[in-house]
Amino acid sequence: MITQQSITDAHERIRPYIHQTPVLTSSYLDELTGCKLFFKCENMQKVGAFKARGAMNAVLMLSGDELQKGVATHSSGNHAQALARAAKVMGVPSYIVMPRTAPAIKKAGVAGYGGQIFECEPTLASRESMLADVVSKTGAVEIHPFDNYRIIEGQSTAAKELFETVNDLDVIITPVGGGGLLSGTALAASFFSPRTVVLGAEPEGADDASRSMQSGSIEPSQANTIADGLLTNLCQKTFGIIKEHAREIITVSDEEIKAAMRLVWERMKIIVEPSGVVPLAAIIKRSKDFAGKKIGIIFSGGNVDLQKVLQYL
Amino acid sequence: MITQQSITDAHERIRPYIHQTPVLTSSYLDELTGCKLFFKCENMQKVGAFKARGAMNAVLMLSGDELQKGVATHSSGNHAQALARAAKVMGVPSYIVMPRTAPAIKKAGVAGYGGQIFECEPTLASRESMLADVVSKTGAVEIHPFDNYRIIEGQSTAAKELFETVNDLDVIITPVGGGGLLSGTALAASFFSPRTVVLGAEPEGADDASRSMQSGSIEPSQANTIADGLLTNLCQKTFGIIKEHAREIITVSDEEIKAAMRLVWERMKIIVEPSGVVPLAAIIKRSKDFAGKKIGIIFSGGNVDLQKVLQYL
Repeated sequence: MITQQSITDAHERIRPYIHQTPVLTSSYLDELTGCKLFFKCENMQKVGAFKARGAMNAVLMLSGDELQKGVATHSSGNHAQALARAAKVMGVPSYIVMPRTAPAIKKAGVAGYGGQIFECEPTLASRESMLADVVSKTGAVEIHPFDNYRIIEGQSTAAKELFETVNDLDVIITPVGGGGLLSGTALAASFFSPRTVVLGAEPEGADDASRSMQSGSIEPSQANTIADGLLTNLCQKTFGIIKEHAREIITVSDEEIKAAMRLVWERMKIIVEPSGVVPLAAIIKRSKDFAGKKIGIIFSGGNVDLQKVLQYL
Repeated sequence: MITQQSITDAHERIRPYIHQTPVLTSSYLDELTGCKLFFKCENMQKVGAFKARGAMNAVLMLSGDELQKGVATHSSGNHAQALARAAKVMGVPSYIVMPRTAPAIKKAGVAGYGGQIFECEPTLASRESMLADVVSKTGAVEIHPFDNYRIIEGQSTAAKELFETVNDLDVIITPVGGGGLLSGTALAASFFSPRTVVLGAEPEGADDASRSMQSGSIEPSQANTIADGLLTNLCQKTFGIIKEHAREIITVSDEEIKAAMRLVWERMKIIVEPSGVVPLAAIIKRSKDFAGKKIGIIFSGGNVDLQKVLQYL
């Protein structure tokens, strides 16, 4: 389904609509971990997250007929903004089902791109039933946040860019929620940097991917963490790829996530949302296992309510 | 005193010890202002500010004999950290006089680089008398934050890098406190990009540079602003260069500084201290005067107490 060529094509397709985000380094964090870290700053991507890549690719792959009645999705936040923006770029409407608990900054982002928001309860059942309702009323095409090969293909381009910028990474690590970024990254590594070990990182309070890797089948998420972008379960598409290409999912506590977020703010002077620093927290926690390695870390997003800053410190 | 060659030499001299900081853009801020903005991110510089450049250059220019007893300065913050770090790089002691009101993050930074801190009252008289005392007791060489051509030369390298990255800037704008960054930038423009108009920006609550440009002689600062890095007066060295090469000093209110800081945090996902966003606040305020122009903005530093974040919003 996804090939080296299809990822290359996706990258060319979305390139006019996304940023080639900077890759930053930090001698302080290198010293702290004993590794050589390269941070791919998708927090500085359009809509403040890598999700701009997949949504843009998925929408650009729709035919004119399919696009006409708009696009729809349910999302806790960043995919919502990304889809609303992609729809705006293409001049079609977007219908976004969001849990009422989603961060205000993410709702404001969706509205800013002209997306029509439908609030639901923060459960998967409520999200799915409201989305089905919206789709049947509008005729819009559903674009799932990760259960979609065009989305996965789009997300893979962040890692592709990182491999093009930094040679010979020993390890690449991303957060894992539904698995779109991790599966895309794993495929990009297999095609463009096959010797690079692929790792995922997730909160202990939503460690379904780690448990799924152990049990061999998709385990449900219990969802108790400040990393609000990583609450969803894997799907068959993402889990299949992750099982084949990723070596391990490392879990970290919310305290470790907060400490990593503070380091990034204070030392790198950039804003990364809690979900986005989970891979760094994982590398700090397990730094002895990676001594001397060249490690690519994808900072997946930067959409955090600044009013919440203090409660994270 | 400072020539095209001496700036080029200074840049080569300090290059191993500083970051070539990234230049970021923001389509949101371009739309908001109607300009094309290029942000030189000295908030991501070593010690979190451009001051690393000047301090490194000044210390590297000392002879072994001069260096032996260490270096000393008074500084409200970023120069203090920069000098402590430069001394640490060279393996000599540093003695730093800081007002007791300086941000905790800046004091912690100085201590982290092994600098010995002497707290004084937040007045110029108190700073100068304590520094004289420290110098006479230790035999250290005083490195003034800006009244020093080697410092100005070092600060000029930020603009030099920006000119090397972005061609044909119509305007370059920096904050102005003591004038080290603005005078260095003005000299860099005169040598490396003579058609670029040089502007300064400062808070209304510390508008001494603006008043000095009007009166033709150095006016005292009254110092009532959240931009804690811009409280000092100009000196003859910096004022002489600024008078000759800078066109105007734009002033902005603290409310305009806070609004700009919030935009930078939310839209660019980076942390810039209040003093550092003053030039962006100035361009937003006067955007009609710069419509369609290519503007280089130096984000001078990123050292802000995160605990103070909420009070700025």
